Amino acid sequence: MSAIPGQGFATPAAAEAAFYAAFAAVDREAMEAVWAPGEHTLCIHPGGGLRRGRQAVIQSWMEIFSGTSPPSIQHRLIASFETRGLAVRLVEELIRPHGAPPEAATRVLATNVFIREGGSWRIVEHHASLPLVPPRGGDEDERRLH
Amino acid sequence: MSAIPGQGFATPAAAEAAFYAAFAAVDREAMEAVWAPGEHTLCIHPGGGLRRGRQAVIQSWMEIFSGTSPPSIQHRLIASFETRGLAVRLVEELIRPHGAPPEAATRVLATNVFIREGGSWRIVEHHASLPLVPPRGGDEDERRLH
Repeated sequence: MSAIPGQGFATPAAAEAAFYAAFAAVDREAMEAVWAPGEHTLCIHPGGGLRRGRQAVIQSWMEIFSGTSPPSIQHRLIASFETRGLAVRLVEELIRPHGAPPEAATRVLATNVFIREGGSWRIVEHHASLPLVPPRGGDEDERRLH
Repeated sequence: MSAIPGQGFATPAAAEAAFYAAFAAVDREAMEAVWAPGEHTLCIHPGGGLRRGRQAVIQSWMEIFSGTSPPSIQHRLIASFETRGLAVRLVEELIRPHGAPPEAATRVLATNVFIREGGSWRIVEHHASLPLVPPRGGDEDERRLH
């Protein structure tokens, strides 16, 4: 996953790949390694509220991983914005529980934010949401709350 | 709103303030002015799918504005990340329809992304979601889908 030992990742894409690999493997240590240190980490799971600060964010993943068999996770980059120190990547996630058929996949849209510190990238925000409407081409949003 | 005439806004915060002012005023021209030009604009309304590209994004706001009386909108910055050309701001929105009482407010979490082009800032992504659980202190997320 292009990890820089003890430091992080060489690119936002490498950090993101490691994030999804950790998720798919329900690997606690790998998930911890991909999050930036400090209190500025933010995580919003689909349908969930805000988890703020590294400890609360990591704890939320430990709860998700607890007792779960590794799910199948595909992620696809939709768009990205990147400067020398900050990157934003919008991805589509297709998640299905261990052993579930492809049609059981849940589609999630996630904005992932990465920061570069000490020459390496880590994730600092994951904002995921569940479209309540099925996709309909490139302009899929019909039912909205605002 | 610190707009640079014909160009945009001097800071991400100014662009964000203009975005929410346009929303609260259901002001079509002001909403158009705050979005970055081009096909890289992205918008996810709460519970909705992805709108991609300036035309689709603006159109989604025109649909929201159509026939709506100006809502009450409060926004509060939770956290931000900023470099010279890119900024991410996580905000809490409290939205209530025109004339509705405060307890009718809907709470939304939004990640807003801004880019700096030609010395001015505009919004390039708005990813909003609706926590399905009520807030519970700083660590509010109990019910999750992943």
